[in-house]
Amino acid sequence: MASAPEGTLPVPPATAAQLTPAEKYQLITQNLAETLGGEQLRALLEERDAVAYWGTAPTGRPHLGYFVPLTKIADFLTASVEVKVLLADVHAFLDNLKAPIELVEARAEYYRRLITAVFRSLNLPLERLKFVVGSSYQYDAKYNLDKYKLTSLTTEHDARKAGAEVVKQVSSPLLSGLLYPLLQALDEEYLGVDFQFGGVDQRKIFTYAEQYLPKIGYKKRSHLMNLMVPGLSGGKMSSSDPNSKIDFLDTPAQVKSKIQKAHCAPGEVEGNGVLAFIRHVVVPIGELFKGQGRASARSWVDGDAPADAVFTVKGDPKFGGSVRHFRTPDELDDAYAAGDVHPGDLKAATVQAINALLAPIQAEFAADAEFQAVEQRAYPPEVKAVPAKKKEKKYTPKPEHLKTPEEKARDAAKAAEAAAKEGAKKGLNEVEQLREAVVDTLSQ
Amino acid sequence: MASAPEGTLPVPPATAAQLTPAEKYQLITQNLAETLGGEQLRALLEERDAVAYWGTAPTGRPHLGYFVPLTKIADFLTASVEVKVLLADVHAFLDNLKAPIELVEARAEYYRRLITAVFRSLNLPLERLKFVVGSSYQYDAKYNLDKYKLTSLTTEHDARKAGAEVVKQVSSPLLSGLLYPLLQALDEEYLGVDFQFGGVDQRKIFTYAEQYLPKIGYKKRSHLMNLMVPGLSGGKMSSSDPNSKIDFLDTPAQVKSKIQKAHCAPGEVEGNGVLAFIRHVVVPIGELFKGQGRASARSWVDGDAPADAVFTVKGDPKFGGSVRHFRTPDELDDAYAAGDVHPGDLKAATVQAINALLAPIQAEFAADAEFQAVEQRAYPPEVKAVPAKKKEKKYTPKPEHLKTPEEKARDAAKAAEAAAKEGAKKGLNEVEQLREAVVDTLSQ
Repeated sequence: MASAPEGTLPVPPATAAQLTPAEKYQLITQNLAETLGGEQLRALLEERDAVAYWGTAPTGRPHLGYFVPLTKIADFLTASVEVKVLLADVHAFLDNLKAPIELVEARAEYYRRLITAVFRSLNLPLERLKFVVGSSYQYDAKYNLDKYKLTSLTTEHDARKAGAEVVKQVSSPLLSGLLYPLLQALDEEYLGVDFQFGGVDQRKIFTYAEQYLPKIGYKKRSHLMNLMVPGLSGGKMSSSDPNSKIDFLDTPAQVKSKIQKAHCAPGEVEGNGVLAFIRHVVVPIGELFKGQGRASARSWVDGDAPADAVFTVKGDPKFGGSVRHFRTPDELDDAYAAGDVHPGDLKAATVQAINALLAPIQAEFAADAEFQAVEQRAYPPEVKAVPAKKKEKKYTPKPEHLKTPEEKARDAAKAAEAAAKEGAKKGLNEVEQLREAVVDTLSQ
Repeated sequence: MASAPEGTLPVPPATAAQLTPAEKYQLITQNLAETLGGEQLRALLEERDAVAYWGTAPTGRPHLGYFVPLTKIADFLTASVEVKVLLADVHAFLDNLKAPIELVEARAEYYRRLITAVFRSLNLPLERLKFVVGSSYQYDAKYNLDKYKLTSLTTEHDARKAGAEVVKQVSSPLLSGLLYPLLQALDEEYLGVDFQFGGVDQRKIFTYAEQYLPKIGYKKRSHLMNLMVPGLSGGKMSSSDPNSKIDFLDTPAQVKSKIQKAHCAPGEVEGNGVLAFIRHVVVPIGELFKGQGRASARSWVDGDAPADAVFTVKGDPKFGGSVRHFRTPDELDDAYAAGDVHPGDLKAATVQAINALLAPIQAEFAADAEFQAVEQRAYPPEVKAVPAKKKEKKYTPKPEHLKTPEEKARDAAKAAEAAAKEGAKKGLNEVEQLREAVVDTLSQ
């Protein structure tokens, strides 16, 4: 086993329980950008299984980018780690001061169901996956006292430094942004975890937690960091990048259309979101399937491929292209850099892989009326703004009893938004600033 | 009544209930540096009596400077205002991370008893004086949510500006200092008050509250501000100024000795803490007594003085000095500026006045064993630091069962302090910074 290349530890679910602590440690820390406190974690695994925390704010619709942290979390679950997913509704609510709290609750529930569906689609054991809603403890007296304590130990300078890579950098940040690292540090204690997982952009928040939790009497945790993966249009993968935003419920045709628009210059590997997605999502999931004894479930590896292949690109025969199998993401990158793989062919293979990944999730959604209802409540159809007419037009509203439930929900949301705008004119821009800071922080 | 000079409205307790709204408004706002939202308060008094809030952090021992806001609060109580005194134990605890929470609880109780004793010594109705301990609501979920909301609307720049005159100005303030104005604004809502009272140094915090409370759906309060009164050694009156610190329990001899050291240059009125104390404490309390029909209780006005005298200075006959009566603080200031009043004579009269003010409070303390026990718990005797010997000396600690309760308490406090130091080496300086910010903010 020691000779297995990094990231290819085969773990059939039947034998996962028999992994040695060292094997678990390898699985948990493989393919990461950095691990802080690795020795501490390694020692702990000799005693018992670990507990981990990953946070996300249930605001916008979860997009394809979520596959990146979830694919890494798949390793944790396989290695018997108890994974706590923090659904940060308090932040999401702040992000949505203008929206009714019910919307945020529905979104937290949608995130919970979707993330569960993703892990189910990956054939993973779910009994160690726990969802915790932020408001279940972030308003408590003890948490509040601890937060006061941290504010009395943390200078504005240190808070700003800790959030430097995740909180929007403006000359005068909102206080909520400055509090961010403090809350995220406390969450480790309140969720009772051994390590926190996040993108490498979280590094300064993680080192803040390591430094400050012991100051208020709590233990220092380990921190595991993913590489930053470029979005499909290049640059940081983020909700605010519309071309990165392939929705988990997008149809195969929509996926195809969006991938065709993705930034993927011939021969360019650096910042190539398509290659990055294959490296960080498709290949690791393929290895997971293989470890589960389900190599054939990897629809992105051709049936005729050699046993060690991880990805297949089929060139269009019209242009003399041939079928090529790759044994590692590096091999694929090299071939692409050398111009041996055409961007169109790469995209076609990627579309096929994405649709294969989405299919079981969408099937679960289609078969579950409750899941669908939650999605409707979480993201009611948007009301398009109608430009104001110069001449006032007489308008007879549809009688309340004739409205559909969707129309009622839409009108309620509109009224709440108008009321909030009225009460907080100046505040709104600042809320918007916060929204971006929250989304940037929590989207991986 | 309209012709009565400002600050001299006679209000015998028997008739206080019959004051007109306009008379109440005059009493409430007399002798202030500034009133914001006066019209709102005036209109409210037409409907009902007002509710006010004044905050103090139970940290160091309350000193003579507390007489200044309490003398103004006496006007509120006389005008049937319900006065809520916030005992800000949360802040005091933060201020004392190194001290056990029991100490802070005892201090809050000592403040409560002392402030009550002061008002009782002034013959004021106490049924409308309420004490509220900060922790009774500052950890609650709703308060916490509102605080989150304010942090999402308040930039670091605006928070810094709001606290500019009360929070220590350093290049990188502690976050607790930045949160200060937010908490103080929320307190108005959670204490359910109509106006807040504080020194004019609170002005920017008050305008912050006026601007931001409505943004989260709460009403804008009125704000009443005292002048800043110089300490007995000149400069801002503060706990950290040892010469300002005449304790409420100081003996007449200690008061005399401290006043003799007070800064009081011949002919200098500006920044003269002795003259300021007479103007802002002694004379108003005298007017209060007079209004109560107890003119003779003013031991600082000679029995032979004319009816309109407010202060008497007796020159030493050895140096040809005579007895002089003053009808207003301005008259006294003018005489002092002209060199007609000797600093020594002024100090002697002031010592007499202070001791007269302290006597009934000390009598209450002396007669109340519980009050004494609280004082002992709140301020246990200090342990003097013994310089470390070069050669280690064999030390046999006193057996636990032979220790007095005081020794046990002292040892427990020492151990807690050592443990806190161990856990928060770097933090301590920052806690010290906070301590100063808190004390500066809340001491009037």
